[in-house]
Amino acid sequence: MLRIDLNSDLGEHYGSWRMGDDESMLETVTSANIACGFHAGDPKTAFTTVMSAVARGVTVGAHVAYPDLAGFGRRPMTLPADELEADVIYQIGALQALAAAAGTQVRYVKPHGALYNSIAFNEAEAATVISAIKRVNPELALVCLAGSPLVEQARAAGLRAVPEAFADRAYEPTGALVSRSEPGAVLHEPELVSARMLQLVQHGTVTARDGSTVAVEAESICVHGDSPDAVGMARAVRARLLEAGVELTSFSGPALQ
Amino acid sequence: MLRIDLNSDLGEHYGSWRMGDDESMLETVTSANIACGFHAGDPKTAFTTVMSAVARGVTVGAHVAYPDLAGFGRRPMTLPADELEADVIYQIGALQALAAAAGTQVRYVKPHGALYNSIAFNEAEAATVISAIKRVNPELALVCLAGSPLVEQARAAGLRAVPEAFADRAYEPTGALVSRSEPGAVLHEPELVSARMLQLVQHGTVTARDGSTVAVEAESICVHGDSPDAVGMARAVRARLLEAGVELTSFSGPALQ
Amino acid sequence: MLRIDLNSDLGEHYGSWRMGDDESMLETVTSANIACGFHAGDPKTAFTTVMSAVARGVTVGAHVAYPDLAGFGRRPMTLPADELEADVIYQIGALQALAAAAGTQVRYVKPHGALYNSIAFNEAEAATVISAIKRVNPELALVCLAGSPLVEQARAAGLRAVPEAFADRAYEPTGALVSRSEPGAVLHEPELVSARMLQLVQHGTVTARDGSTVAVEAESICVHGDSPDAVGMARAVRARLLEAGVELTSFSGPALQ
Amino acid sequence: MLRIDLNSDLGEHYGSWRMGDDESMLETVTSANIACGFHAGDPKTAFTTVMSAVARGVTVGAHVAYPDLAGFGRRPMTLPADELEADVIYQIGALQALAAAAGTQVRYVKPHGALYNSIAFNEAEAATVISAIKRVNPELALVCLAGSPLVEQARAAGLRAVPEAFADRAYEPTGALVSRSEPGAVLHEPELVSARMLQLVQHGTVTARDGSTVAVEAESICVHGDSPDAVGMARAVRARLLEAGVELTSFSGPALQ
Repeated sequence: MLRIDLNSDLGEHYGSWRMGDDESMLETVTSANIACGFHAGDPKTAFTTVMSAVARGVTVGAHVAYPDLAGFGRRPMTLPADELEADVIYQIGALQALAAAAGTQVRYVKPHGALYNSIAFNEAEAATVISAIKRVNPELALVCLAGSPLVEQARAAGLRAVPEAFADRAYEPTGALVSRSEPGAVLHEPELVSARMLQLVQHGTVTARDGSTVAVEAESICVHGDSPDAVGMARAVRARLLEAGVELTSFSGPALQ
Repeated sequence: MLRIDLNSDLGEHYGSWRMGDDESMLETVTSANIACGFHAGDPKTAFTTVMSAVARGVTVGAHVAYPDLAGFGRRPMTLPADELEADVIYQIGALQALAAAAGTQVRYVKPHGALYNSIAFNEAEAATVISAIKRVNPELALVCLAGSPLVEQARAAGLRAVPEAFADRAYEPTGALVSRSEPGAVLHEPELVSARMLQLVQHGTVTARDGSTVAVEAESICVHGDSPDAVGMARAVRARLLEAGVELTSFSGPALQ
Repeated sequence: MLRIDLNSDLGEHYGSWRMGDDESMLETVTSANIACGFHAGDPKTAFTTVMSAVARGVTVGAHVAYPDLAGFGRRPMTLPADELEADVIYQIGALQALAAAAGTQVRYVKPHGALYNSIAFNEAEAATVISAIKRVNPELALVCLAGSPLVEQARAAGLRAVPEAFADRAYEPTGALVSRSEPGAVLHEPELVSARMLQLVQHGTVTARDGSTVAVEAESICVHGDSPDAVGMARAVRARLLEAGVELTSFSGPALQ
Repeated sequence: MLRIDLNSDLGEHYGSWRMGDDESMLETVTSANIACGFHAGDPKTAFTTVMSAVARGVTVGAHVAYPDLAGFGRRPMTLPADELEADVIYQIGALQALAAAAGTQVRYVKPHGALYNSIAFNEAEAATVISAIKRVNPELALVCLAGSPLVEQARAAGLRAVPEAFADRAYEPTGALVSRSEPGAVLHEPELVSARMLQLVQHGTVTARDGSTVAVEAESICVHGDSPDAVGMARAVRARLLEAGVELTSFSGPALQ
């Protein structure tokens, strides 16, 4: 039986500010990347979101980021390795305690925003993040960009790497994402997106923007996105996959409760 | 054989700013209250301090605080209970992961500054902190003001409460600390302070400011303080106690390495 | 001819987080209380909001607050007077420069949230805020709670005090606001609210919750609120007042452009 | 008569953390670059430092930085132009109001740390900073690295550019600073440093590290530095220049009081 994980970035409120419809997303995904306070997610928000995830059997991961609330973790930053390592450990730990208090465990780490993009290709910075994760708990998985060098680097370092595809993004014939600065980089039709993701799960391929078919190894699909109707898109992907008999389940097994 | 713990507030640097002589203090104390980033202690500082503590066999505790870098956690704040609970869990967890990465464990929690003062007497706020600790790990001890209602409250809630005395503070005949706003509230002579602490360990009493003798139950002595020569004071207390045959050891047993 | 000012709290986004519909509100009010970065309002948001206000001829004021992003400035805090004074001066100045860059001037100061509530009745803290304003520019007006001691205190200190009423709040027979913790404290019917505000402008009174009529001296009406449809409420008040021939204009004269 | 300005980075405390000996430095320099809260310098610190500068007749400038307290503004960051522009305006304005409250005026802007280094050579980012300054007040001078493209760029844009030399830094034969990563980049002998600065003022040259003589146009000398004895170094430079009959005076004329 075919199976896949659906993940989404959640818990991105901050204080009085809201972002996203977490409750609806938690009904749709199998893994919740929960902000740890550095780009979003004050402690109360993180705690509330973990508890909601637990109530729905959704697995939780630490969505770690550069220390950049004002820039939502999207601004490229150059941190000394020892600062970055400590920042990552700190964030994972904060979420681990909130998860423990909510009766579950953090099962994976997914870097956010500018950090995610940087370590996909910057080997030295990636090594720092990998080291941080291993020092906390080498059983934690690392969700990373499918097709990026990070996947093999993490595996070589002994971590479980979980490559992910992006539901609403166009792909180059090389398997890379089409840059957001290019037209057509972001897909908006739930029907099309759902069909693409079914192809990914069934055949391990996506149709690139030149019409060619490219292999993409992915154990998870990120359904969060910049599309205005992120929830609608996520629901469409979920429905299409279930309809085709695909099992939706966390890559790390069911959440502990 | 008589025994006591010496604790101090450490890891209170922030970014490029330094505070205190942590290396010297770590040679002197048996328990290190490590700042968790809310009043001081960026992740790198916290990590470095935990590693230094491990190298010296000093037990580490989470020095949790209100979110108040600008005020060093000394400004009274009123947080909703759910925010405070999540803040405390978050801080403990962040330090737990740094401790795990350094090969040790967090063994206790000591609230800092305005939070410390508030929960000593504010039962509702104390209940929130106690709940936070229990949800993370009910084996964690809570260091609290000797003689305050918090000691019994924590014990009644099933936590190990560790009452502490303050080496450089004068006491009222009631066993309360003399308020800092009063003359003579802070003691400055290492000789006198050392003798007072020896009396505390040997007889369970301190001499109050009116000359009377008052019982103070303490399992730890806080040697950090506002005195200009905190290190000298701490060393004097340590030397006097050792000389008198008192064993200096963490209240929670030796640090795990 | 009768005239009144309508003010609203604006520029309360922060980084990637949005709050409120500023563009619609700027079409409705005559004075914009602009967040200065301490409770909300990163510099870019503040600048953008000032420029939007200028484009619509809306007067701008500095909405100064306690340093409390996580709590949106709503958490009671106790700051030393010298810190609070510097914090207030700093915030006013930051907005003044953004206003200058946008071709206008800051004309008034309105404290926000917990600071607003505190200085309405705490004379010592109010004196600090008044001193801060006078040291920056004694021509700046201070918007304050109608009926509170602050109105007279500010006037006695030589500042122009602008008492304000709250459109969507119920009043006690004493002229005080009904506490939010009481049922009926917040009004939700645009029709009723508009009629009440017209009575305020025409007769200088509001109907208290016991049905009695109480005098309320107000030079401005705050139409921002916690009601879900703040914009709809504001538009209703504006329409009703204009319909009755009331002139809507900033208490400090037209905005400079 | 020869004249030169001596400037130093001051007001870099934050909350309870101290950095540098501002009182001694203010006895030595003629211009004080005052931190504006983004890399250091909470409002109270900035206010206190401005008042101390006023009391000594030292001119004040705004030491603007990236928003990076944890990294002391030394971490390279990439900000969108509109954010950076607003950040710079905000910081200048905050200091202007504190200066006004202290009875003086901000006379210049000096970017700090990573921002200083970046705009010396990054024309696009420099244009953003220049625009920000001009929008606040085109009479403000911009202190910039002697010999960098920024000097001409600022002048071409109509700003007064004040090139500065660094007292304790070695120079390349090209007039560039020797990179800190190279041995000998930082000079430590007050005698040598003082003689070099006298040569700079008298002849407009410095001796490069290969022994050659290179022209350096400078209207100010930065005497703050990473040398352990910054105050001693500054005093030595001051004494040597005064002894040689050089007038030490702010490039912008005497401070307003």
